[in-house]
Amino acid sequence: MPQLRYFTAGESHGQCLIGVIEGLPAGLKLDTDAINRELARRQKGYGRGGRMKIETDTVEILSGMRRGETIGAPVTLMVKNRDFKINELPPVTKPRPGHADLTGVIKYDRQDARDILERSSARETTMRVAIGGVCKHLLSTIGVDVVGHIVELGPVKAKVDGSSFQQIRERSEISEVRCADADAEKQMIEAIDEAKSNGDTLGGIFEIIAVGVPIGLGSHVQWDRKLDANIARALMSIQAIKGVETGMGFEVGRRFGSQVHDEILPAQAGLFTRSSNNAGGFEGGMTNGQPIVVRAAMKPLSTLMKPMRSVDITTKEEVKATVERSDVCATPAAAVIGEAVVAIELAAAVLEKFGGDSIRELTRNVASYREACKRW
Amino acid sequence: MPQLRYFTAGESHGQCLIGVIEGLPAGLKLDTDAINRELARRQKGYGRGGRMKIETDTVEILSGMRRGETIGAPVTLMVKNRDFKINELPPVTKPRPGHADLTGVIKYDRQDARDILERSSARETTMRVAIGGVCKHLLSTIGVDVVGHIVELGPVKAKVDGSSFQQIRERSEISEVRCADADAEKQMIEAIDEAKSNGDTLGGIFEIIAVGVPIGLGSHVQWDRKLDANIARALMSIQAIKGVETGMGFEVGRRFGSQVHDEILPAQAGLFTRSSNNAGGFEGGMTNGQPIVVRAAMKPLSTLMKPMRSVDITTKEEVKATVERSDVCATPAAAVIGEAVVAIELAAAVLEKFGGDSIRELTRNVASYREACKRW
Amino acid sequence: MPQLRYFTAGESHGQCLIGVIEGLPAGLKLDTDAINRELARRQKGYGRGGRMKIETDTVEILSGMRRGETIGAPVTLMVKNRDFKINELPPVTKPRPGHADLTGVIKYDRQDARDILERSSARETTMRVAIGGVCKHLLSTIGVDVVGHIVELGPVKAKVDGSSFQQIRERSEISEVRCADADAEKQMIEAIDEAKSNGDTLGGIFEIIAVGVPIGLGSHVQWDRKLDANIARALMSIQAIKGVETGMGFEVGRRFGSQVHDEILPAQAGLFTRSSNNAGGFEGGMTNGQPIVVRAAMKPLSTLMKPMRSVDITTKEEVKATVERSDVCATPAAAVIGEAVVAIELAAAVLEKFGGDSIRELTRNVASYREACKRW
Amino acid sequence: MPQLRYFTAGESHGQCLIGVIEGLPAGLKLDTDAINRELARRQKGYGRGGRMKIETDTVEILSGMRRGETIGAPVTLMVKNRDFKINELPPVTKPRPGHADLTGVIKYDRQDARDILERSSARETTMRVAIGGVCKHLLSTIGVDVVGHIVELGPVKAKVDGSSFQQIRERSEISEVRCADADAEKQMIEAIDEAKSNGDTLGGIFEIIAVGVPIGLGSHVQWDRKLDANIARALMSIQAIKGVETGMGFEVGRRFGSQVHDEILPAQAGLFTRSSNNAGGFEGGMTNGQPIVVRAAMKPLSTLMKPMRSVDITTKEEVKATVERSDVCATPAAAVIGEAVVAIELAAAVLEKFGGDSIRELTRNVASYREACKRW
Repeated sequence: MPQLRYFTAGESHGQCLIGVIEGLPAGLKLDTDAINRELARRQKGYGRGGRMKIETDTVEILSGMRRGETIGAPVTLMVKNRDFKINELPPVTKPRPGHADLTGVIKYDRQDARDILERSSARETTMRVAIGGVCKHLLSTIGVDVVGHIVELGPVKAKVDGSSFQQIRERSEISEVRCADADAEKQMIEAIDEAKSNGDTLGGIFEIIAVGVPIGLGSHVQWDRKLDANIARALMSIQAIKGVETGMGFEVGRRFGSQVHDEILPAQAGLFTRSSNNAGGFEGGMTNGQPIVVRAAMKPLSTLMKPMRSVDITTKEEVKATVERSDVCATPAAAVIGEAVVAIELAAAVLEKFGGDSIRELTRNVASYREACKRW
Repeated sequence: MPQLRYFTAGESHGQCLIGVIEGLPAGLKLDTDAINRELARRQKGYGRGGRMKIETDTVEILSGMRRGETIGAPVTLMVKNRDFKINELPPVTKPRPGHADLTGVIKYDRQDARDILERSSARETTMRVAIGGVCKHLLSTIGVDVVGHIVELGPVKAKVDGSSFQQIRERSEISEVRCADADAEKQMIEAIDEAKSNGDTLGGIFEIIAVGVPIGLGSHVQWDRKLDANIARALMSIQAIKGVETGMGFEVGRRFGSQVHDEILPAQAGLFTRSSNNAGGFEGGMTNGQPIVVRAAMKPLSTLMKPMRSVDITTKEEVKATVERSDVCATPAAAVIGEAVVAIELAAAVLEKFGGDSIRELTRNVASYREACKRW
Repeated sequence: MPQLRYFTAGESHGQCLIGVIEGLPAGLKLDTDAINRELARRQKGYGRGGRMKIETDTVEILSGMRRGETIGAPVTLMVKNRDFKINELPPVTKPRPGHADLTGVIKYDRQDARDILERSSARETTMRVAIGGVCKHLLSTIGVDVVGHIVELGPVKAKVDGSSFQQIRERSEISEVRCADADAEKQMIEAIDEAKSNGDTLGGIFEIIAVGVPIGLGSHVQWDRKLDANIARALMSIQAIKGVETGMGFEVGRRFGSQVHDEILPAQAGLFTRSSNNAGGFEGGMTNGQPIVVRAAMKPLSTLMKPMRSVDITTKEEVKATVERSDVCATPAAAVIGEAVVAIELAAAVLEKFGGDSIRELTRNVASYREACKRW
Repeated sequence: MPQLRYFTAGESHGQCLIGVIEGLPAGLKLDTDAINRELARRQKGYGRGGRMKIETDTVEILSGMRRGETIGAPVTLMVKNRDFKINELPPVTKPRPGHADLTGVIKYDRQDARDILERSSARETTMRVAIGGVCKHLLSTIGVDVVGHIVELGPVKAKVDGSSFQQIRERSEISEVRCADADAEKQMIEAIDEAKSNGDTLGGIFEIIAVGVPIGLGSHVQWDRKLDANIARALMSIQAIKGVETGMGFEVGRRFGSQVHDEILPAQAGLFTRSSNNAGGFEGGMTNGQPIVVRAAMKPLSTLMKPMRSVDITTKEEVKATVERSDVCATPAAAVIGEAVVAIELAAAVLEKFGGDSIRELTRNVASYREACKRW
């Protein structure tokens, strides 16, 4: 078995969202408030619409805990929906371009696109953020930390070169668009306002950074063990993500090798160092001890207030697409979701490499490996 | 079980490369010559070095076939290495930046980076191309076709807007750099020459297009069932790939929704059509009936003739990295590898959706579904 | 991905039990009452103690359904515990022989065996019965039916040779010990009474029969695709099961080949028939069109009213084991659990072979295969 | 990913048998001669027919090794077939009862049962024995040892109560029927002779014992993590196995709890002990530190020299089944195969719990856990 496995379940207007995460060591103290803070971070962001105010998501832990600690058993998380009305809501017969609506009804042989959009909705990511919150608890026991922030939003690019992990965290955390560059933030808000006034939507690009990651997570030995590939999958599986890159990313295709690769320098504190981190922390599908840096591009939301052309699936006539309640821009939230899925993949890779049924065993195995790396 | 599973095995200077692919229906006629042509395509390309001439890879099918057809059993593919000398080759103690060398020796606790690079080498992709060749046979039974071509190489961008699938295939196939734009090809060759004369290397960006794909492969219902995410993983798992995007890709983050989403138009021949294909064939993690379009960015090769700085892992002193035999640019080959892994993921998704233990059963299930889609 | 996947979660005195089942086609009507009847069947049986009266388990479907039908999304099932007090219950430091208590606390590095027994308890099987209930709904769409009954209980053996599937179902259903042989039932009750009066417990052997199963589920081509092996795993994973056999079972080791194998006879209604069913419906790890017959042996419950010797894990002194609330005999319930896990494995094998995202697609694929089998 | 994965491939009269095992730590010295000795053990046994003399199986390691040690990469094993003639052999149209022949041709839509039997043949187990041999190397680095022996053969039962692991190993190793009881051995040989003279075949029951197993492999937390269940699956997946039991096995269903459970006694050398081992080393799906004891029942071989009734799949007329070359009794060989699959499952469970990319890391993690168990 893989050490760590998880599912999410639940619909946008169903009773609740559910997550089950399996394979966690025992003895991990879980702080529900900390997970709720993650959920709140996902709900923030300039450009969010009405629903974000309806809901203040809070998680309940239904299983796998006793007296505040995990016991090795599967942890079930539940976030209740405040507007549970899935069975009452009217049919959706005018599928929205860019959404799963049309493909879903054909694949699953349904007559009502609501049967699809209730699950395909980005509401599902709430649970990934909660599960990511659990994984962050695990990662913190071995000193791994993860942050997500916005680097592009529409035409605006942030400038964060030279900022430290802590600076990026602090600055993005107080930003309305989760951007660590205050100048760019202002322009990003303007771009959102412009989209809104046009009944349009806006996407963007976020970056996830992870520090404190042990050398040698993932592996080069088989295609599906490469951690950068698994992280790419996790990010691409977030609703509306259309591109993923690590380190220098697509730019690597446009440069010479001498401008791309990170030179290896003599050891400091027992570990080799690098002249740069264009690789984004990965060589051969393995973490190389440098910070992990990955980016993902999110398309603009598929529900436009000024709807696009579609076809009614009942009458087969040309219509305007349904306008389901939506936001103008959700990319700041996507950065939080990106943090979560990266945290999950890292936790899985840590448990795959180090095993361990208790936090004590896990941290012992990690510590002895880290010691061996220095002496290596 | 997943319907389709595969492993590759083998080292760069080991006895052979091995691939096992499991879960294929019975009754699939496999043409070894066709697979060998795929292997030859992978070995071509302006900018390849000496080894590509040493080897003319040919595949042997060791299992799973009888009298030219699959029998449902696992298919084993073998490509022999002509320079089998893994045990004789000298140690590598000067790890190359950008390669798995240094991280690998630490993770696996080895004293000789050859123990790592022999497996992490892109030589491994030979077998993925062979397995992809098998999967193309499967896909052809249901009318799916896949092509890969170069869209950027160093500073040069190809112009292929408006070209058909067939045009791209034919033009790229005769190009020395697998580029369908003859003008760009010329500049790309110049860029490779420049890199070569500097002892440097060059990467690039390739695009994979798949046509004839049924609606509804993959699913929105769970994060790890999204086919675009699984294809992203497969592409990112190719050696040296640092970015993956689908359809409009990273550009989606820079545009308004009204410029991105593909409007839905009334049915032609029973199926809805689209005004554009910015989604690259995916909505909600499912194929939407439009051509699949994905791109991946390859970094320049990690072995430079003018080597970068490194550290000797024995003496811990600063040195120049080892110069292992290498090419200047392998991106044209990477496009062939990209074709292969996309073909594998599509074959897996087809078998997951349609089941089928014989080609007759598979094609029957696909045909009745396609009929139902039209009547839907 | 495998088509069908599931987890259970939840503790014996936690808030609730949770099950998530993923990969079900859309359009499956689920009848909560029918699932509740399965839960009630699991709670019945002569020899059950107090808790079975405390609880009348009822399931809530939290996700994956809309207006009474599945929508392709993961289905979450919840059964609430009426005595939710996991955090209040006193520590267990006197591990019970035969239970997970002692091994669990060592493996998971806990100081209180309650952290283990809350999850290892057979209370968990409630959720497997509920999930099995869902799978029975799926199986019924293609005419597959499953029943479990007791064939041995302590020293008493039932005689059911020559009984039909329907007779076994009807007779066992009204039996207090789920035994289709009324004479044996009487003696079984006496054996339970004897165990009870001695502060002891009693196990037994149950049999699961499945009819209507298509030919060719599972496969001989790879060790982990053999359906009899996967069913053996599922049965052995039920708490307290120590043996599994199919068809003639262990007796095959004691007979000659001519007494064991089932002769093949000319076709009736297009399908070959057999002279007997000693194989229990499996040849080469595949269903052969005969009824599936498997048996499993359950050990007596591990909590004895007259407790066995143990060691206090705190003081390390010899003590008597903890007496957690328990029953005298739960084998009749185990037969219901056995039905459930066999139904789950069959549903998974059906979806693996036939694919299908909607019930309409699944049943269409099954029907055309069955037609082909007859014409074959 | 699971730490350890493996496939076998190859047909009975194909070019070769192939095994790929993936996830092994680096630095494991593999002794090809030791693996060949395992293959020879599988070929021995009174009652084997002609083929066992044709072939003296020897393994070649095609990948994953350098200079005698694993390097973390997938290990490919190959055993060549000396009678490679799969494409020349005549069709088989008279399916043998008990074999995969008939079900296989229907499922895979073939007209010649040879397309099935070539893969379903127990010849495949050669490769599982080879892979098991690799896993035994791994297990020996942490002091785990495995032996298989015959406990019943036809009507004859061996008496081995009170024998030590070493005695069973030594005595069974020199026995012609792999039986540690010399008296029983004589009778077993007579039973085989009787079967042979009648053109019949004979099965039997073998037992696998594993010692030195760490406490806490497998887990109670999820149905598919229970190690006894996974071992049951592995054993049941061996050709011709129809029953599996652990410890007291089916007898547990016939006894009172006080006669079944193993009392817990105060610690010796830091670890709790037991009054008996009726549990066969498993409680709650986890190893409890006692020897693992499992048994499996093998049916008589399906190819009888005095063939049973069958139906010609071409003419649909009643015929006698094909007589493919075969043995009278292969149960002694099955015990060797049983050893192998138990070794594989144990190795997988060890790597799942302890992680480790090098033998040094693995053994360090195991040692520190064992130390913690004693201090616990």
